[in-house]
Amino acid sequence: MLLDAKRGDVGTTAEQYAAEVFDRYGADAATINPYLGFDAMAPFLDRADKGVFILCRTSNRGGADLQNLVLQDGSLLYEHVAHQAATTWNSNENVALVTGATQPQELAKIRQITGEMTLLLPGIGAQGGELAASVKAGEGGGLIVSSSRAVLYASSGEDFAEAARQVAESTRDEINHYRDLKAKFAPDGAMV
Amino acid sequence: MLLDAKRGDVGTTAEQYAAEVFDRYGADAATINPYLGFDAMAPFLDRADKGVFILCRTSNRGGADLQNLVLQDGSLLYEHVAHQAATTWNSNENVALVTGATQPQELAKIRQITGEMTLLLPGIGAQGGELAASVKAGEGGGLIVSSSRAVLYASSGEDFAEAARQVAESTRDEINHYRDLKAKFAPDGAMV
Repeated sequence: MLLDAKRGDVGTTAEQYAAEVFDRYGADAATINPYLGFDAMAPFLDRADKGVFILCRTSNRGGADLQNLVLQDGSLLYEHVAHQAATTWNSNENVALVTGATQPQELAKIRQITGEMTLLLPGIGAQGGELAASVKAGEGGGLIVSSSRAVLYASSGEDFAEAARQVAESTRDEINHYRDLKAKFAPDGAMV
Repeated sequence: MLLDAKRGDVGTTAEQYAAEVFDRYGADAATINPYLGFDAMAPFLDRADKGVFILCRTSNRGGADLQNLVLQDGSLLYEHVAHQAATTWNSNENVALVTGATQPQELAKIRQITGEMTLLLPGIGAQGGELAASVKAGEGGGLIVSSSRAVLYASSGEDFAEAARQVAESTRDEINHYRDLKAKFAPDGAMV
């Protein structure tokens, strides 16, 4: 279970938040916010038995407001976060990144920075084009594709369970279709 | 009551968090994290009857990790946040900023950017020098000085209540002392 808690607080409070999500709620992994820096993330990162998904590039409309700011060296803020995650914050090899699927070219850049690190893609609807581009952009390492609202709100009627199942299955099939295409055309390439 | 919740999540979830802190818990104000951008903060900012304290420069050790990154135009990330807060995010005049007291020169810069905006200073201990510099740096607008752990952990013995009271009162007196000094030397100047 991944608890999408988006926690971000100073050391002593962060310790309590980490205990809350991992020990009280029993989550296997949690999302955290990097704005407060390393020591605010440390109580999560220290849990080598758990997964820590750091917000890197979020899929909401305002995600670019801060995350795409250009730094002095020409990199973007979210690229800096990806770089730090890959080089500094991952000493327990339990770090993954939240990378919105709305911008496949950004995902490709993050994959380039992070190597095989697992990337979580929220914001996937049922649009084949977007999904195809995202699966391609994210190849070369772990990739978790998340579809939340498209499944949750598949129907408001009596057929909710069946409608949600259909959306979930068709999304899964589509993902596997694009993986198969890759396997076909690049049999030795890195698989998702 | 200011709820130091440090919320930061996408639109629909942010709406629920805003309802939680303001309506369920009845907080008068809450802290929020700017990393997810404007639309993640909007459900809080839209509450003109409530105060919204945006994390700008936090007082923890790792606060500088992201917040002090230099942007392409030479400004620092936290200065950009302060600028956006003053020029774009405050249409309901309910925005304040969390500005760690550990760096008085940074506080002075934030005051310069934000004009009269209220600034919240956490991280104040009982150190007179730091407090004096912070009160001076923050002049020109609203200033809320917070001392938390120094009061909470004033004593672990039976005299806890009295010890906590003494720390709180001496901190208050010290703040007023530095305000008095300013009033004496600059009678027409902006007061804290």
